[in-house]
Amino acid sequence: MSATLADIGEDALVRLITRHLRQDADVLLGPGDDCAVVRPPPAKHEQVLKTDTLVEGVHFTPTTPPRLIGRKALARVLSDFAAMAATPRHALVTLIAPPTTPVARVRAIYQGLSRLARDFGVCVVGGETSRGSQLILSVSMSGHVKTGKWITRSAARPGDVLYVTGRLGGSLRGWHLRFHPLVKEAAAIAQHLRPTAMMDLSDGLARDLPRLAASCGLGLEWWPEKIPLNPGCTLHQALHDGEDYQLLLALPPSLRTERLAQVQGLFPRLRFFPIGCLLPRPSKAPAPRGGWDHFGRSP
Amino acid sequence: MSATLADIGEDALVRLITRHLRQDADVLLGPGDDCAVVRPPPAKHEQVLKTDTLVEGVHFTPTTPPRLIGRKALARVLSDFAAMAATPRHALVTLIAPPTTPVARVRAIYQGLSRLARDFGVCVVGGETSRGSQLILSVSMSGHVKTGKWITRSAARPGDVLYVTGRLGGSLRGWHLRFHPLVKEAAAIAQHLRPTAMMDLSDGLARDLPRLAASCGLGLEWWPEKIPLNPGCTLHQALHDGEDYQLLLALPPSLRTERLAQVQGLFPRLRFFPIGCLLPRPSKAPAPRGGWDHFGRSP
Repeated sequence: MSATLADIGEDALVRLITRHLRQDADVLLGPGDDCAVVRPPPAKHEQVLKTDTLVEGVHFTPTTPPRLIGRKALARVLSDFAAMAATPRHALVTLIAPPTTPVARVRAIYQGLSRLARDFGVCVVGGETSRGSQLILSVSMSGHVKTGKWITRSAARPGDVLYVTGRLGGSLRGWHLRFHPLVKEAAAIAQHLRPTAMMDLSDGLARDLPRLAASCGLGLEWWPEKIPLNPGCTLHQALHDGEDYQLLLALPPSLRTERLAQVQGLFPRLRFFPIGCLLPRPSKAPAPRGGWDHFGRSP
Repeated sequence: MSATLADIGEDALVRLITRHLRQDADVLLGPGDDCAVVRPPPAKHEQVLKTDTLVEGVHFTPTTPPRLIGRKALARVLSDFAAMAATPRHALVTLIAPPTTPVARVRAIYQGLSRLARDFGVCVVGGETSRGSQLILSVSMSGHVKTGKWITRSAARPGDVLYVTGRLGGSLRGWHLRFHPLVKEAAAIAQHLRPTAMMDLSDGLARDLPRLAASCGLGLEWWPEKIPLNPGCTLHQALHDGEDYQLLLALPPSLRTERLAQVQGLFPRLRFFPIGCLLPRPSKAPAPRGGWDHFGRSP
């Protein structure tokens, strides 16, 4: 029988988790003390903060490969940093798990998370463990962005055209566990295209598209026939499945398409699909409805 | 019947939570976007990060007043900042709750948390909500400390005397929900006494005292008869109850006691009780055992 968290206890668990974490020169005090201490953002940068949580039975199942649970927990936060065109740097990771959880499962979760962290230059500098009735993995990230250069959801103007950066729908076939957070792509988009608004698509276009328009205090015109579908997916799936982790961005209508092509050329898999535009004022025009609600009853 | 989270849905919940949060001039972008953006630490300061989690059935019960749940979630992290002599500034708050949770309970949790945040100059700049099978409240904090001035657990020297800042034991009678995080006290201690090591007592002296010695790579001599007990408490309780949220600190034996008196004079309820000292090398000498283990079986 394989060892459980109850068998090894909290101190051994923490040693197991923290042993293989790699730190870099910006980490002045890593895991094992009351707090972590890291170097502040570079000059002329602001600090960026975000947290996100995965709950068993909501964001993954008992049969999800544990490495991919760890990967996903971090990847979702990286996707939020991408949406701001910000650089993620230092993560805190919280694990809540039943005492009956196999140690091997926890080890694999942290391996998946650490691997992706390394790929994106992120250090896990601390965290927390507690027992609980279901497995939960929560990641808080601190990073930075150049002063005045972050992209909000809310500064688009009437007439701006809305784009998505890839095909949508069908994320449950595996994409929601294996998606590539568009951190570098977003930095290039911010630098070369200067979007007026940007967000990542996590709750489904049906929910996120009206959210972006509402954040801008604008109305929305969307072009259902132009929404790019993943192979085998319906429009309904593209609107409602969620977890696409593509970027939704607004660009001025005056932007020349060769500029889009230039950025696409930097990243082979990056595309810009126009799917609608913003209208002068909030309207009751038909907007896609539905998407993912953590607490609400089914529509 | 009172409204539940399922009745109002996620977007309304987030509006409810974020409506009353106060921001200050250091918050450039608060809740509602993909990430928060805040001003970096002041010049010649480093960044400090910490996260902590409360789980229903572990850290509080279904009958715990919800304002005190929110208060405690933040107060624990503040206590960790105190242990580093650091200044807490920006919090991310994650709520996981069953859809059947009354809205009024969640509102009260955030009221308790916000109130304490205001008292300590902390802004809640973002967070996350998800459904789950039990109520969980997790707080991640970012703050700062002057370069080179933070106090770790690990730099004490042989002969240093160990002190606790208040009486121990019996926290379950209410102290664990109402304790005052020693942020200002710790700043004064760091400035005037320069402890060689410091930590906050959350898991019980029996567990935290050997931890501090082990962090320093030193042995431990402790003086059971000198451990200050809360009224009506036994030594066993002082060692094992946990959640005292007093500071445990190491001071050089050469420190003059009038210096202690000077700092005590700044804070009427602050005391310095000597409870042991550090020995040249790790020993098998009898150290208090036990304390709180989140995953381990009962001793």
